[in-house]
Amino acid sequence: MGDSTAPATRAARALDLTELHASLTDPVLDAMNFLNEVVSRFPEALSFAPGRPSEGTFATDDPARYLRTYTDHLKYELGWSEDRVRAQLFQYGRTNGIIHDLIARTLANDESIHVSPESVVVTTGCQEAMLLTLRALFARPEDTLLVSSPCYVGITGAARLLDIALCPVQEGATGPDPKAILAGVRQTRAAGGRPRALYVVPDFANPSGASMTVAAREQLLEIAAQEDLLILEDDPYGFFVREGSSRPTLKALDRERRVLHLGSFAKTAMPGARVGYVVADQEVIGPAGERTLLADQLSKIKSMTTVNTSAISQAVIGGLLIESDCRLRAANADAIAFYRTNLNTLLDELERHFPAARRRELGVDWNRPDGGFFLVVTVPFLADTKALEHSARNFGVLWTPMSDFYLDGGGSTQLRLSCSALTPEQIRDGVSRLAAFITGQASRAGR
Amino acid sequence: MGDSTAPATRAARALDLTELHASLTDPVLDAMNFLNEVVSRFPEALSFAPGRPSEGTFATDDPARYLRTYTDHLKYELGWSEDRVRAQLFQYGRTNGIIHDLIARTLANDESIHVSPESVVVTTGCQEAMLLTLRALFARPEDTLLVSSPCYVGITGAARLLDIALCPVQEGATGPDPKAILAGVRQTRAAGGRPRALYVVPDFANPSGASMTVAAREQLLEIAAQEDLLILEDDPYGFFVREGSSRPTLKALDRERRVLHLGSFAKTAMPGARVGYVVADQEVIGPAGERTLLADQLSKIKSMTTVNTSAISQAVIGGLLIESDCRLRAANADAIAFYRTNLNTLLDELERHFPAARRRELGVDWNRPDGGFFLVVTVPFLADTKALEHSARNFGVLWTPMSDFYLDGGGSTQLRLSCSALTPEQIRDGVSRLAAFITGQASRAGR
Repeated sequence: MGDSTAPATRAARALDLTELHASLTDPVLDAMNFLNEVVSRFPEALSFAPGRPSEGTFATDDPARYLRTYTDHLKYELGWSEDRVRAQLFQYGRTNGIIHDLIARTLANDESIHVSPESVVVTTGCQEAMLLTLRALFARPEDTLLVSSPCYVGITGAARLLDIALCPVQEGATGPDPKAILAGVRQTRAAGGRPRALYVVPDFANPSGASMTVAAREQLLEIAAQEDLLILEDDPYGFFVREGSSRPTLKALDRERRVLHLGSFAKTAMPGARVGYVVADQEVIGPAGERTLLADQLSKIKSMTTVNTSAISQAVIGGLLIESDCRLRAANADAIAFYRTNLNTLLDELERHFPAARRRELGVDWNRPDGGFFLVVTVPFLADTKALEHSARNFGVLWTPMSDFYLDGGGSTQLRLSCSALTPEQIRDGVSRLAAFITGQASRAGR
Repeated sequence: MGDSTAPATRAARALDLTELHASLTDPVLDAMNFLNEVVSRFPEALSFAPGRPSEGTFATDDPARYLRTYTDHLKYELGWSEDRVRAQLFQYGRTNGIIHDLIARTLANDESIHVSPESVVVTTGCQEAMLLTLRALFARPEDTLLVSSPCYVGITGAARLLDIALCPVQEGATGPDPKAILAGVRQTRAAGGRPRALYVVPDFANPSGASMTVAAREQLLEIAAQEDLLILEDDPYGFFVREGSSRPTLKALDRERRVLHLGSFAKTAMPGARVGYVVADQEVIGPAGERTLLADQLSKIKSMTTVNTSAISQAVIGGLLIESDCRLRAANADAIAFYRTNLNTLLDELERHFPAARRRELGVDWNRPDGGFFLVVTVPFLADTKALEHSARNFGVLWTPMSDFYLDGGGSTQLRLSCSALTPEQIRDGVSRLAAFITGQASRAGR
């Protein structure tokens, strides 16, 4: 000790990035960082990049009122003593949450998902729900997660943290394709992997905007039963229908408890509270035959990630649920109308700038999602970070390269547009800028 | 698909516990579950088991006031617009947090730890800080975490989730022992492992109550430099001095950035907010020589665990820090006095029931921590879950078996007493019950 002949060890110790966990040098992470960096360098640009919700009618004082609504509920409806109420806010709490009953009631009202409150795990945003679920289900190196591709980076990122093998399954024209999923399962198995679960966003997916038909949902559940696959269903955008009516979630159709339903309040309430949940009503059988819920197993993992979800945040979301009588879909009527107008405006403006003949001439097209925040534009040039920088600098408009959402290459000539955080006026202005950018690039590409 | 000849696949699918991740069948988790179960079965028992803080003068309306203090600070001191303030509460936020500057100021005032706000990562409780830190630093199977043993289950649990190899290092009479740590480093290396970091609680450790001398802290930093080891310092109890004065944290003594300082507001503010942090001011050098802070790398991981810490929770803790002028030690004066009285009462009562001659006769003894929430009683019988159940049922007093905190056996005749969540009266009553239990068991053991 105190070896003064080794002055090299006395300097501040720098760490070598390549000696840190491999997830830190994942290209997807680099891509997201670059995107954030471009967004921050061009703060004046109109941005179709972020998928964040509109702040709508939210007021700074709302969280304090929701807190009061929740504690009043405990005191006056449930008859709790003042001491018990203050301990509920102040102390460590139940690992799986304190508003699980309100969430179960809301799921029954809004989604016809009928589950016991004990099968609901309240999490620090939906991201923690993904982490807990993946950690519990994936035990061995061969356990493989199938993901509908292009795919939300939150799930692939969580899988990377846990060194979980991934198998991307290409989406069809109307989103996740049951036949392609079946092929992915068999291909995984042929390569020595064990297909353990599939991650899918059935409604208005991020990034593609695509949705599964009801028939495709039924077919996917059949495949899951036949191939012994669990389904991780993520449904943050289901309320936000533009055209047609809401379709049943996979969980509402699930009669064999094959679906773990991941939930978020980030789009339907507020992202800042970081409250999400997972419905895990599967039975788990122990070595001595003892039966628990998968939710109870997730609880053990949650005690090692965040102990419990913030009681303050849960109380805020709890108060909001109580104020809306556990009917969040009805409470979102204005938001649903806002996003519908935005997506219609985006589609109309694209049509106005690129009518059919012009589209064919330029080699430009886009999909027309039935709802949600996103759509995908296909262009006749590389929609990469260089193009994005050009778009930001010279046209004042930002978007997301679709290639960021592919694990296996793909999307190189596609861009994702999000319209959730803009006004209709900004969308009109933004599409006009985007049209100038796309037309210029297409011309340079010789179209 | 739809193979109707296979009715077995149509039943609700139960999962096999042995096919889930190995952390779910870890004996430590089972032990903690059993403990919680015993506590819940004997709600009337006086409990020395939980390490939770006292609710003190906390009032149910405090969080709403703290929220207001924080938003007023943004509006009137920082001059933010109303729109910017409401977005701060409502929206997704900066991954590494929004009260990092207030935390850095508080660390400077209270601990003489001077770091840039950019090196502070605000986390969902200290538990997430452990998870992020372990995930970033442990990349290969041979990377080994040394833990001072007996050890807090939060760190060993997080390591289990990530399949990280552990090497327990036995504590000495005054806590973590630098010589034993050096021996553990060399032993790990000899066995083909790579000692990557040491987890240590220098002040009033959970579970032992032991503290490192200042000389031992200096010596540990020397060893870390010499052996190229990082130190994960966890210091939730440092304020709560019973006798003597506060000692400098390892981070305050760290001149080579070898210490990652894990912080909690659970004991000094409120557990229910789930806000903690890690100071990660280490430099990281990328393959092309680019330099970042370790905090920036942790940010990438945090975006895949919880995206960001609840803005509502951060605003509550932020308001509390602002109200205390970023001097949390002074704000905790009443709590410090409360815990001092409690620990003194516990020690006095043990002495009263077991004076020196009686101690020798029975084979009972305990340590006398300088502060914190915990002490350890050694008894002449197995202090296991069966003894705990006997103690709860027949004597109405609960405690924690020390064996729960050992990875490699140990503590089988020791029990941990926590006095943080009791009043002095309850402590007197509890020790009286405990003395009857211990005397009875010691007699049965033939003493």
